[in-house]
Amino acid sequence: MEHSRFERGMQNLSNIDGEAGHKVIESLQDICPDLARFTIEYPFGDIYSRPGLDLKSREIATVAALSALGNCKPQLKVHLNAALNVGCSENELKEVILQMSVYAGFPAALNAMFAFKEVLDER
Amino acid sequence: MEHSRFERGMQNLSNIDGEAGHKVIESLQDICPDLARFTIEYPFGDIYSRPGLDLKSREIATVAALSALGNCKPQLKVHLNAALNVGCSENELKEVILQMSVYAGFPAALNAMFAFKEVLDER
Amino acid sequence: MEHSRFERGMQNLSNIDGEAGHKVIESLQDICPDLARFTIEYPFGDIYSRPGLDLKSREIATVAALSALGNCKPQLKVHLNAALNVGCSENELKEVILQMSVYAGFPAALNAMFAFKEVLDER
Amino acid sequence: MEHSRFERGMQNLSNIDGEAGHKVIESLQDICPDLARFTIEYPFGDIYSRPGLDLKSREIATVAALSALGNCKPQLKVHLNAALNVGCSENELKEVILQMSVYAGFPAALNAMFAFKEVLDER
Amino acid sequence: MEHSRFERGMQNLSNIDGEAGHKVIESLQDICPDLARFTIEYPFGDIYSRPGLDLKSREIATVAALSALGNCKPQLKVHLNAALNVGCSENELKEVILQMSVYAGFPAALNAMFAFKEVLDER
Amino acid sequence: MEHSRFERGMQNLSNIDGEAGHKVIESLQDICPDLARFTIEYPFGDIYSRPGLDLKSREIATVAALSALGNCKPQLKVHLNAALNVGCSENELKEVILQMSVYAGFPAALNAMFAFKEVLDER
Repeated sequence: MEHSRFERGMQNLSNIDGEAGHKVIESLQDICPDLARFTIEYPFGDIYSRPGLDLKSREIATVAALSALGNCKPQLKVHLNAALNVGCSENELKEVILQMSVYAGFPAALNAMFAFKEVLDER
Repeated sequence: MEHSRFERGMQNLSNIDGEAGHKVIESLQDICPDLARFTIEYPFGDIYSRPGLDLKSREIATVAALSALGNCKPQLKVHLNAALNVGCSENELKEVILQMSVYAGFPAALNAMFAFKEVLDER
Repeated sequence: MEHSRFERGMQNLSNIDGEAGHKVIESLQDICPDLARFTIEYPFGDIYSRPGLDLKSREIATVAALSALGNCKPQLKVHLNAALNVGCSENELKEVILQMSVYAGFPAALNAMFAFKEVLDER
Repeated sequence: MEHSRFERGMQNLSNIDGEAGHKVIESLQDICPDLARFTIEYPFGDIYSRPGLDLKSREIATVAALSALGNCKPQLKVHLNAALNVGCSENELKEVILQMSVYAGFPAALNAMFAFKEVLDER
Repeated sequence: MEHSRFERGMQNLSNIDGEAGHKVIESLQDICPDLARFTIEYPFGDIYSRPGLDLKSREIATVAALSALGNCKPQLKVHLNAALNVGCSENELKEVILQMSVYAGFPAALNAMFAFKEVLDER
Repeated sequence: MEHSRFERGMQNLSNIDGEAGHKVIESLQDICPDLARFTIEYPFGDIYSRPGLDLKSREIATVAALSALGNCKPQLKVHLNAALNVGCSENELKEVILQMSVYAGFPAALNAMFAFKEVLDER
């Protein structure tokens, strides 16, 4: 049932991204509430709720991907927070970012590390 | 000492990437042996040998990043093999790839999944 | 209801991508049927079924994006076929690809044009 | 004749991008006026003046590509304005951006949607 | 005059890319001759003919960019040939590619180096 | 010896990037000093110290790559300064950036040119 995907997604969004996730969803309400709904239903309702991979590993994967892509700093910051929320240590996240220097180059790793610095300062 | 970075890197390359890693290194010998040496020294000697993150999490991060970037299939295949070598299950890797549909789009996830299919067929 | 998203998605997949879409879905069955299901449910069940934009414009957007990204030739070919299926003319698609030289550079436009050549030869 | 490409380009730039386009051109005068000239001559003189695709479809293609690439927010904003200028509705542009979640991931779609919010607020 | 941009471009294409460049242009004739014409006029007629940067430096810039982008191997191979044609040594090009490991990651450098190996084997 | 890679790297960093490079290194000290160390050792200790390519050509390659990638403005600005430091003229760098319109599109070239404008204003 659609309703349950949304409810499951909202629950996951709260557990994982916390306040930052809700702010993203709220900020979409006056421009495109359907994008908010899809963001809740598909990533958080369908994907993060799947049993085959623990949440800590999921956030490591997301932080790695967003660091490597290098063009989505707001989402990287949300997920660095999320990764800390689900049990990644600061040091583990620094290692993930450091490792991205190998796969996406030093600029990508540097920019992700500076984003993490902002996240830690803001917490 | 330079020598020890190289030796540590070779050891890690053998442990993680196995035969596939050595084939990459060999295939560089007649075109640019220094790129082979740097690939051993920096990623495998400096980064994968660091204690702050377990190898399984490191490979999850690498598979996520290479799936998201979407333009380095040979390296993705090497690291899908590597991930299996260091203890990731097939199912965990499918989850990592599936999750990339959220962050890099469905084409990136589909192409990474088909690369994984090739890897599993070749093992 | 989940079932209806899937059914709506399958219907759209058939109408838009035709045989090529079904081949993609089939080829996922032995590696990750859930990625097949999500590809049907979200892009085709949720997005392509929305009333606010005609299918021809949707395919123009997709061809433009995949040409610009430049790292997903199989999906570009599926959507060049799809674009022809929903009423884009060959000439309109050439214009879309040509225009991508401005936004993603000449190599991206050239590679997309050669993909289109393959599509036209295969039809 | 070179002169006519430039004149045709300036006319198209005015019609399509309006004041925002002229600001970009002006801001290049003290750093690299030839880049300004080429931007007028090739994209606007050569490409946007071609008859095979209507301007509305051209702007849909451009908005899709720039949303998917995700690293050129100033140009995306200029073309979201341009798209509105040549007859795209707000809702159609939201659909194009929403659709990019499928091909370039949710972060790309979210960032493009927030850029559109800025454009609408500024108009 | 349009004619002279095209003629200047054809001359530059011959001098720089040689036979490989002409093959690209020919292969476009039955799908989109205007993309062939624009590829001659803008990159080769307008840009490569400019006096402010020597051809060797221009090809170093192009090889660096295409290696870093990593999604346009055919064009990278054409320009590795072109770079050799205008006076870059094999060793200089290996250094350019090696350096890209810093800015775009090791997979990008490895794939560009293997493309160069193909180029050298084919010459 | 590790020590000499670091020392050689620090020397190169000073010669090439000057004060801007040292600021980047300093700003990493409280978040991840190892990333600072690796940035000195690998790019500046291993790569920029190699004899096969002059520093001016190395900076042209880096400016081209970072302009084309388009998602690392801080590093592009550091290397535009570095390029001027090692003997590139303003005009040569404008030509490199202009040329990127061909390989990565006009938005990438425009954003790199505006970054260069900032660099020149700040010097």
